Amino acid sequence: MTWVLDLTGIFVFAISGALAGVRTRLDVVGMAVLAFFTAVGGGILRDVFLGVQPAALHDAGYVLVPLVAAAIVFFWHPQVTRLLPSILIFDAAGLGLFCATGTEKALLFGLSPLHAVLLGVVTAVGGGVLRDMLSGQRPTLLYDRQLYAVPAFLGAFTLAALFEFGVRGPLAVLAAAVLAFTLRFLAMRKGWRAPLARGVKDSA
Amino acid sequence: MTWVLDLTGIFVFAISGALAGVRTRLDVVGMAVLAFFTAVGGGILRDVFLGVQPAALHDAGYVLVPLVAAAIVFFWHPQVTRLLPSILIFDAAGLGLFCATGTEKALLFGLSPLHAVLLGVVTAVGGGVLRDMLSGQRPTLLYDRQLYAVPAFLGAFTLAALFEFGVRGPLAVLAAAVLAFTLRFLAMRKGWRAPLARGVKDSA
Amino acid sequence: MTWVLDLTGIFVFAISGALAGVRTRLDVVGMAVLAFFTAVGGGILRDVFLGVQPAALHDAGYVLVPLVAAAIVFFWHPQVTRLLPSILIFDAAGLGLFCATGTEKALLFGLSPLHAVLLGVVTAVGGGVLRDMLSGQRPTLLYDRQLYAVPAFLGAFTLAALFEFGVRGPLAVLAAAVLAFTLRFLAMRKGWRAPLARGVKDSA
Repeated sequence: MTWVLDLTGIFVFAISGALAGVRTRLDVVGMAVLAFFTAVGGGILRDVFLGVQPAALHDAGYVLVPLVAAAIVFFWHPQVTRLLPSILIFDAAGLGLFCATGTEKALLFGLSPLHAVLLGVVTAVGGGVLRDMLSGQRPTLLYDRQLYAVPAFLGAFTLAALFEFGVRGPLAVLAAAVLAFTLRFLAMRKGWRAPLARGVKDSA
Repeated sequence: MTWVLDLTGIFVFAISGALAGVRTRLDVVGMAVLAFFTAVGGGILRDVFLGVQPAALHDAGYVLVPLVAAAIVFFWHPQVTRLLPSILIFDAAGLGLFCATGTEKALLFGLSPLHAVLLGVVTAVGGGVLRDMLSGQRPTLLYDRQLYAVPAFLGAFTLAALFEFGVRGPLAVLAAAVLAFTLRFLAMRKGWRAPLARGVKDSA
Repeated sequence: MTWVLDLTGIFVFAISGALAGVRTRLDVVGMAVLAFFTAVGGGILRDVFLGVQPAALHDAGYVLVPLVAAAIVFFWHPQVTRLLPSILIFDAAGLGLFCATGTEKALLFGLSPLHAVLLGVVTAVGGGVLRDMLSGQRPTLLYDRQLYAVPAFLGAFTLAALFEFGVRGPLAVLAAAVLAFTLRFLAMRKGWRAPLARGVKDSA
């Protein structure tokens, strides 16, 4: 079940990576690279920091699903772009899921709650940051003022808190993921924005 | 023998990194950094993903050869630039060699053929991607439509196939490397190009 | 004692990261990310290359100090900017400290002096390079001709030499750190500059 959810999240993130590739006019190789690292880059960073071989190197789905997503975008990107609003919903679901599973994995490796929350956020947002850096752009995460890392942080925090109180396993993951997803969804809906330092004008 | 070939590949990749440094007007420190990461960055990424200390940290040649290459370009870059056509041949040889040795190392670490091929390609093209990212440019690999990753992929695939059929060791590496080199060479000669997604105009 | 010095270095580097975030008009999330990776990015790279879990994942201070620095810059960046000349002194101190401790850690892990010096320099300058790459800019280290990596190299070299001659522990770290700090300070004072390759015009 987690595995299916995981691959769904990876698929959606890969679609977003491949679409970024179309926007910046990459060729087919660039689209595949961007789809792959957007989808599994966050998990790779988490696992490299934990000092273990990335899960993406032990599961064929983690490689094949991004390639399928890239192929779909390659042939049908106008249609996919039209579905973007619903894709953003799935992206929010992926964000929620990855911040929860990333935090859980870090806790199971014995990290402190503080550091597990950090790695949970890295898992959720790392792929998007790599996507932007590989596209030669500033990571949108850092300046676009959308609440993206903040819902991931609150989801990761929730999972760590539940874990410390002994609530573990799929239920805790689900609760944390739903919380992060809901916050992300509301942030998009209501146009909530992250603050800038005093006196700084918006760069968008 | 492999060690000599390896250092030759590293030398050529380092020359390409140092020349990129001259083009983007880096100082001597930047040239050395770019030469080093262009040359051994792909192998470092492979080893980090495998969870082992990078080979570059256990062999003096992997550090000294890039520094020598940077020094040569520092003093004689106009002459080196004139040799560029032949350097591209050596670069193709490095590409062929690194996709084969990278895939072999991943297979010997017990990865599946799918993931070993992935790491073989990362070994071959990772240094160039790091070179471009450190220069503050979009990785040319992703958009310039040259066939660069594709020959590396086919070489890595060949090595994995031979390995699965029991053909291992230097002979398999040589066969895969020669195949990738030849394809890369033909791609340059004939101007073969990677496709763009439907309706996308070239960004070059 | 080392721990206090370490956190001081991290604090100063985090201030520099957060200020870069203000300059490039990042939001509060971007400022926190930049502060964190500028401060501990060099150590993370060193530990990933060594194949161990980054120290930043085992010490709460390594996470909290950068966040405090980001908060200070968020609210009082005009005042902090006015203190910049003195911050540059602390930055030089951080550079000296990190090149020495980074080299020492690598030597204690059994690396050769050559590779330990390499990792010492990576520890000292890696955070600044990550800061610039995350800001979507060319790393200033590579082209601004300031002597920044060179003092780090000489400090790392000194520590490795002392270590080989049996002079180890806090005294060796102190000597190497003071040397690198002094050279960095003089380089700023006197405006010493790194050379460009022959015939290349300055890009600054």
